[in-house]
Amino acid sequence: MVGQQQVADAAATAARRVPVPPAKPLLRTVGANLMEVFFPDDPFRAVARDQGGGRRALAALRYVFPFLEWLPSYTLGELWADVVAGVTVASLAVPQGISYAKLADLPPIMGLYSSFVPALVYAAMGSSRELAVGTTAVGSLLFAAMLGEEAPPGEKPELYAALAFTATFFAGALQAGLGVLRLGFVVDLLSHAAIVGFMGGAATVVCLQQLKGMLGLRHFTTSTDVVAVVRSVVTQSHLGQWQSVVLGGAILFFLLLVRFIGKRKPRLFLLSAAAPLMSVIFGSLLVYLVHGENHGIQVIGALKKGINPPSARDLLLSSPHTAVALKTGIITGIIGLAEGIAVGRSFAMLKNYNVDGNKEMVAFGLMNIVGSCTSCYLTTGPFSRSAVNSNAGSRTAMSNAVMAAAVALTLLFLTPLFHYTPLVVLSAIIISAMLGVLDFGAAARLWRVDKIDFCVCVGAYLGVVFGSIQIGLAIAVGISILRILLFAARPKTTVLGKIPSSTNFRRMDQYTAAQAVPGLLVLRIDSPIYFTNASYLRERIMRWISYEEDRIKAEGLESLKCLVLDMGAVAGMDTSGTKMLEDLKKNLDRSGVQIALANPGSEIMRKLDKSDVLGLIGDEWIFLTVGEACDYAQRTCKIGIGMDVVECVAVVDPEDMV
Amino acid sequence: MVGQQQVADAAATAARRVPVPPAKPLLRTVGANLMEVFFPDDPFRAVARDQGGGRRALAALRYVFPFLEWLPSYTLGELWADVVAGVTVASLAVPQGISYAKLADLPPIMGLYSSFVPALVYAAMGSSRELAVGTTAVGSLLFAAMLGEEAPPGEKPELYAALAFTATFFAGALQAGLGVLRLGFVVDLLSHAAIVGFMGGAATVVCLQQLKGMLGLRHFTTSTDVVAVVRSVVTQSHLGQWQSVVLGGAILFFLLLVRFIGKRKPRLFLLSAAAPLMSVIFGSLLVYLVHGENHGIQVIGALKKGINPPSARDLLLSSPHTAVALKTGIITGIIGLAEGIAVGRSFAMLKNYNVDGNKEMVAFGLMNIVGSCTSCYLTTGPFSRSAVNSNAGSRTAMSNAVMAAAVALTLLFLTPLFHYTPLVVLSAIIISAMLGVLDFGAAARLWRVDKIDFCVCVGAYLGVVFGSIQIGLAIAVGISILRILLFAARPKTTVLGKIPSSTNFRRMDQYTAAQAVPGLLVLRIDSPIYFTNASYLRERIMRWISYEEDRIKAEGLESLKCLVLDMGAVAGMDTSGTKMLEDLKKNLDRSGVQIALANPGSEIMRKLDKSDVLGLIGDEWIFLTVGEACDYAQRTCKIGIGMDVVECVAVVDPEDMV
Repeated sequence: MVGQQQVADAAATAARRVPVPPAKPLLRTVGANLMEVFFPDDPFRAVARDQGGGRRALAALRYVFPFLEWLPSYTLGELWADVVAGVTVASLAVPQGISYAKLADLPPIMGLYSSFVPALVYAAMGSSRELAVGTTAVGSLLFAAMLGEEAPPGEKPELYAALAFTATFFAGALQAGLGVLRLGFVVDLLSHAAIVGFMGGAATVVCLQQLKGMLGLRHFTTSTDVVAVVRSVVTQSHLGQWQSVVLGGAILFFLLLVRFIGKRKPRLFLLSAAAPLMSVIFGSLLVYLVHGENHGIQVIGALKKGINPPSARDLLLSSPHTAVALKTGIITGIIGLAEGIAVGRSFAMLKNYNVDGNKEMVAFGLMNIVGSCTSCYLTTGPFSRSAVNSNAGSRTAMSNAVMAAAVALTLLFLTPLFHYTPLVVLSAIIISAMLGVLDFGAAARLWRVDKIDFCVCVGAYLGVVFGSIQIGLAIAVGISILRILLFAARPKTTVLGKIPSSTNFRRMDQYTAAQAVPGLLVLRIDSPIYFTNASYLRERIMRWISYEEDRIKAEGLESLKCLVLDMGAVAGMDTSGTKMLEDLKKNLDRSGVQIALANPGSEIMRKLDKSDVLGLIGDEWIFLTVGEACDYAQRTCKIGIGMDVVECVAVVDPEDMV
Repeated sequence: MVGQQQVADAAATAARRVPVPPAKPLLRTVGANLMEVFFPDDPFRAVARDQGGGRRALAALRYVFPFLEWLPSYTLGELWADVVAGVTVASLAVPQGISYAKLADLPPIMGLYSSFVPALVYAAMGSSRELAVGTTAVGSLLFAAMLGEEAPPGEKPELYAALAFTATFFAGALQAGLGVLRLGFVVDLLSHAAIVGFMGGAATVVCLQQLKGMLGLRHFTTSTDVVAVVRSVVTQSHLGQWQSVVLGGAILFFLLLVRFIGKRKPRLFLLSAAAPLMSVIFGSLLVYLVHGENHGIQVIGALKKGINPPSARDLLLSSPHTAVALKTGIITGIIGLAEGIAVGRSFAMLKNYNVDGNKEMVAFGLMNIVGSCTSCYLTTGPFSRSAVNSNAGSRTAMSNAVMAAAVALTLLFLTPLFHYTPLVVLSAIIISAMLGVLDFGAAARLWRVDKIDFCVCVGAYLGVVFGSIQIGLAIAVGISILRILLFAARPKTTVLGKIPSSTNFRRMDQYTAAQAVPGLLVLRIDSPIYFTNASYLRERIMRWISYEEDRIKAEGLESLKCLVLDMGAVAGMDTSGTKMLEDLKKNLDRSGVQIALANPGSEIMRKLDKSDVLGLIGDEWIFLTVGEACDYAQRTCKIGIGMDVVECVAVVDPEDMV
């Protein structure tokens, strides 16, 4: 036992040295880094675990088509649950699909097409159990705003539809491409706050646009900003027929009432899920019975029977209009991804399973590519529909297949029933949906927790509402990137003090008990040191020192002998970082201040060693803990060892002279 | 004493609680943050220190015009030193100015103009004592490449010159604007490695371009890439006159020899500084004496006498060509800043004083704005010239004024002497200067210390050499930004273990002695948690846990009871970050793993408190140190307290249903 104790003691002493890690093979380091960047979720782990070629191939196939995983053990009970969920979602999908297609200035039938084929693709490739596929209001609005400029849908409906398919194709290609290249983190570059603001702004704009349908106006602005819309409404010479206004108001009231009830009594959620369909049936019946179409109530009119016609030939992959379609596809593709991935992840987290974001992107991408060839426009996994799906008890992606089947039946047999559906009902459905998206609670939470996030949110909102949907998006992206750059360019440095009767050092601005160590300044750097922040950090550290020297002078304390840098939080370093430390060391030498590093990580130690900065600072000034650094510095500086000031020899390399 | 001890003990116990900081007034927080972002160097400290309105005004004036600071105490000795340095620099500036103007396809005399007025402006406004103002090879090359496309200098010399002035004006406006708005950190977004590669590539391209002058070729490619140049040289039907080639070779050999000698014996630096002027004098004399201009040696020809004519009227601020000038101005302005600021900072560091980057930017900006109105083109503080200035012993910015005076004298009286200067001598001067910029040593250091930096450097180099100077720049900027995003999107998480016989926890991959604590997983997050990395971090942490559970199962250890997150290095958090912790807590609750936070910073505590995540995790699971967290977790989990698993209640908010 004694021998063991001695060995342990020796090991403990050795353990308190900060080691320079041995060089690792370059390829392995590169491999590990690439793995961390592109496969942080280690998606092939399940595949790699299986032994044998055949089983691995099967596992890989299962990886690509998740339905192969659940189908073999699929039970009748699960099927029943999925059928209930699928039919419930379909009852929402049909009126919503028609409404959103109108919003996108596309033929209403395309909204139904878009709930059929893409849902089947997702059922085969998607890994979320709750996500329900469909079009979104924001995507539809973006299509109308961005493509409408190139090809006014009223004048050139064929070109407009072709552009919509093309944009959908590009959106799908982008989504699938990002997924295959494992670049899913691009989606994370849009901050949550920016999305809340942007979505809220879009919802506001969509509601305002519906004033046209609700008030039965004939002339209406094509701009989306609030000023133009309000002016357009106010200067209107005559309102539409009162019948239309009354019907719309009544339906909207009904929808809002049902939502309010559903909110209070979660058990009645089926009612609120079915309310849009009920409104459509009621409105259509009413118009049919009283011949409302002759009394100023605009109706959908004839819809073609039959499922999706092919549209691959309509894609404009090399025409003068391709650029606009590409731009629209990129923007809507990213926004669609952001919503779909967030929805998939949220529900997966709620039900305690994992979805692979990059794999989902491939599923979304294929869904849109196939959709663009079968008369569909941009689809994703909208939150509203997925919530209904989940609440109705969906167990697998099969519910999407059921919904697709129900929509297909509608397309084949029931489209004539929508002939008399009043447009004002669709407007009411859209408004009621959009009022749910306007999340004032979320904005209030942002204000409480993080003022900057709140500003981002409000900026994006105002940009959309007073500018245009593109301006709002640009503001959201711009502020998000600016925030990343600020985090990168202005890392935190804090002064540490000793917590009494312990060896811990903590931030002095946080712990009032923390005490400064006489003659020492302990600074903590909370960031990797690299090119964006290296010169800032050098200047900031020098400023801390000059503040400290002012304080020392003012209070007549012992002069500053040593700067201890707590490197524990410095996760990485590049050559600008090593240069920064070298410069700092030389600077401090000139003013007779020693420098000590505490707890540098292995990558830092390797880089300091390779760049010879370690030799410059001296091995003996590297410590495991801040406490040890301070002890050593106090002892050494008192007896005057190690404090010989290096004279500055300012020789410019003559090679640099010309 | 005993009483004091008790008080200290009580204080120590209290000190071990992690406090939620009191709310601070919003305006003060905003103010402090803005101060940190825009005035990290606290530039007005000297001004604010002074008491009284008059003295403050004087201090502010001194801040804007640094020469007011040193002029009152300027001694004759300093004047003498500055005169020596200024004349030395002028002897380099005259031939270099003419050479670079040729490189920019501008009249040679503009190179002299550009060393006169801008140098005077900098003498008044600049704060560096060593920086010498002048044109650069890279800036000249960029002007030729970017403006030459719009207005071929051979065909439309007036338009080309006007574009050059306009681009210079925009560059100056950008520089001054960035400085005034305190956005100096924009320059830091170009990494050092990218600049080394870009500059090296530009130097290579410039050398290749000089083959035309050196070999006396008449037909030459206008592309800058190495393939086009080599093809152009190889397919040349006849070389120029042998006289030209021999003279050029001899001068180049002389210049390289002098530089080699100067490198070996630093005392002879004056020789290498004066070598270009000596070459010009020797070459001109030779041509004059043997009438070389009649034997195939091209000469500069007639130069106008007189100082800078005004050019403010030539600025094309609203013409079809303005866009190109603006683009050129922005790119060259940023590159000029990057070089000038780096030079100023390096020398200031060497001599142990501070330059304010943002103030320098304003000086550079005004220098270029004034220059653009006085027939100058883009100037900055080139490294070569500043090194000569420093080595020649400059003491203040007065040396720039002396240089300006010397150049003005040349312009007024000596321009006829340059009539017979052979172009081949100018080419030799440029090549010799550019070979000094090609810094293979720096590239080798990058490879040794940081492989990614090396790749960035090589990428920028190859982009310039095989693509174009713009492509190289785009690659450099692109890789730099990608690197920032990767740092932001993929922070490090590491497993910590206990260092035996201590309370310290350190990275297990770095310290072999560190030991895992049974039943616990200690993870350290090395980054602020915000929108770019929140979902990555959640997934990565879950992956660590699943790895750990696999290991526990394989080795038959005690099951995982608690996850301890070391939050010491988490410098900031936004609402995505608090959401991430909330999600993580809910996830872990479902698998019966407790979560504990160690050493969260005050901002983190405030945000966790505001977002109610603190309540969710529980106050008692927040600790000052990892050690205390582990102790508590071990004790609590063994006796089964605090481990009640929260059941997942997956109710979707019906408000979200539509």
